[in-house]
Amino acid sequence: MQQILTCFSPVLFPHYLTENSIAVIIDVFRATTSICTAFQNGAASVRTVASTTEAMDWQAKGRLVAAERNTQKCDFADFGNSPFDFTAEKVSGKEIVFTTTNGTRAVEAAFESDEIVIGAFSNISQLTEYCLSKKKNIIMVCSGWNNRFCHEDTLFAGALAERLMAEGDFEVSCDASMAAIDLWKITKTDLKNYISKSEHYKRLQKNGHDHEVDYCLTDDLAPVLPIMNKEKKIFTLK
Amino acid sequence: MQQILTCFSPVLFPHYLTENSIAVIIDVFRATTSICTAFQNGAASVRTVASTTEAMDWQAKGRLVAAERNTQKCDFADFGNSPFDFTAEKVSGKEIVFTTTNGTRAVEAAFESDEIVIGAFSNISQLTEYCLSKKKNIIMVCSGWNNRFCHEDTLFAGALAERLMAEGDFEVSCDASMAAIDLWKITKTDLKNYISKSEHYKRLQKNGHDHEVDYCLTDDLAPVLPIMNKEKKIFTLK
Repeated sequence: MQQILTCFSPVLFPHYLTENSIAVIIDVFRATTSICTAFQNGAASVRTVASTTEAMDWQAKGRLVAAERNTQKCDFADFGNSPFDFTAEKVSGKEIVFTTTNGTRAVEAAFESDEIVIGAFSNISQLTEYCLSKKKNIIMVCSGWNNRFCHEDTLFAGALAERLMAEGDFEVSCDASMAAIDLWKITKTDLKNYISKSEHYKRLQKNGHDHEVDYCLTDDLAPVLPIMNKEKKIFTLK
Repeated sequence: MQQILTCFSPVLFPHYLTENSIAVIIDVFRATTSICTAFQNGAASVRTVASTTEAMDWQAKGRLVAAERNTQKCDFADFGNSPFDFTAEKVSGKEIVFTTTNGTRAVEAAFESDEIVIGAFSNISQLTEYCLSKKKNIIMVCSGWNNRFCHEDTLFAGALAERLMAEGDFEVSCDASMAAIDLWKITKTDLKNYISKSEHYKRLQKNGHDHEVDYCLTDDLAPVLPIMNKEKKIFTLK
């Protein structure tokens, strides 16, 4: 039986790292949602980097750069972090470099896992299928906000865990996974309303991004499975 | 209006530290419950220390030592971490040094708060009254288990937050506090049953401590308010 672990902040990852594991990177608002959209629209690869300086270096080498800090697009960047930025016209066939406030930090934290994949409501069915096809433990890595716990990533972790428990040979082996599932169960029929009380929704709203929320909370709009090539440190489609 | 913040692991404390704050140290199973019991039975002071070596140094200087690692009493210690160990006969008038797996780590993490107090179901009414009497932000510091999220501390944070919201001029200002309250609401009428599925309950049960659970989950058995004297680094009663 495989374990389902949930890590509420990138800072906590070392305390959840388990052998034979797939780390699911979750940043529903909005990095992992946007990465799925970019692949759905034909992007060739996505590289996540921690600093804007590193992103600028890649831009100088001809890559397209998505860069966001505190919900806002960085001036030098080609894209911010809105899924609507990544149209087929702009991204098809392109190598994209991503740096965001929280999502890229989660990717770095999870590097010691055997496999690293991208998770969002946008690709939940594809991701469920992939996790079910492997005999591995699953570590949900919630990006949170500046290392704090956040609702939207936790609820996604609960949604994915619920599917894995229903369809596969998994067990919930930490209190955090149990809490994520319980929070998902009480919110799933009224998700948008619940999320609207969260810290990050208010932040998005304040900065004029609340119209992206519906997209970010909808299942299977971008049915892809981005997986990390750990040698090259880029995500490509499976 | 004062804020209620909830930090699910000592590791996350720096991301929740706020000015003008009282840190409530929570380790329901069992450190903070036992500390309340010790004071209720007449202990003069409690000093929390991180290492067993430091605890042994204090023991050589004549202090009574409570020391636990992975739910078990350390061989050299006068007490383990069971609230039933701290009888009036043993602790009345005594200075006690405490080192436990998780609770003492939380005290160290929270040292930068203006005030540090001990919280458990055992002293929840006393603690609520104290928090209401101050115009300060409240940071709930869940000790967790080896830096992981844990249910029992989270549910206590939810219980305390619910009381503060009902009776005082507080607002929930982070997603973690909102989650703690929501989890408390769905479990409070069946707390023991819910907790029995948690990681730490199973660990206590395996090591023969499950009979302590009822005591640890009961309100107001030890109506005291241990508060840290930051200069002397000891807890005494307010």
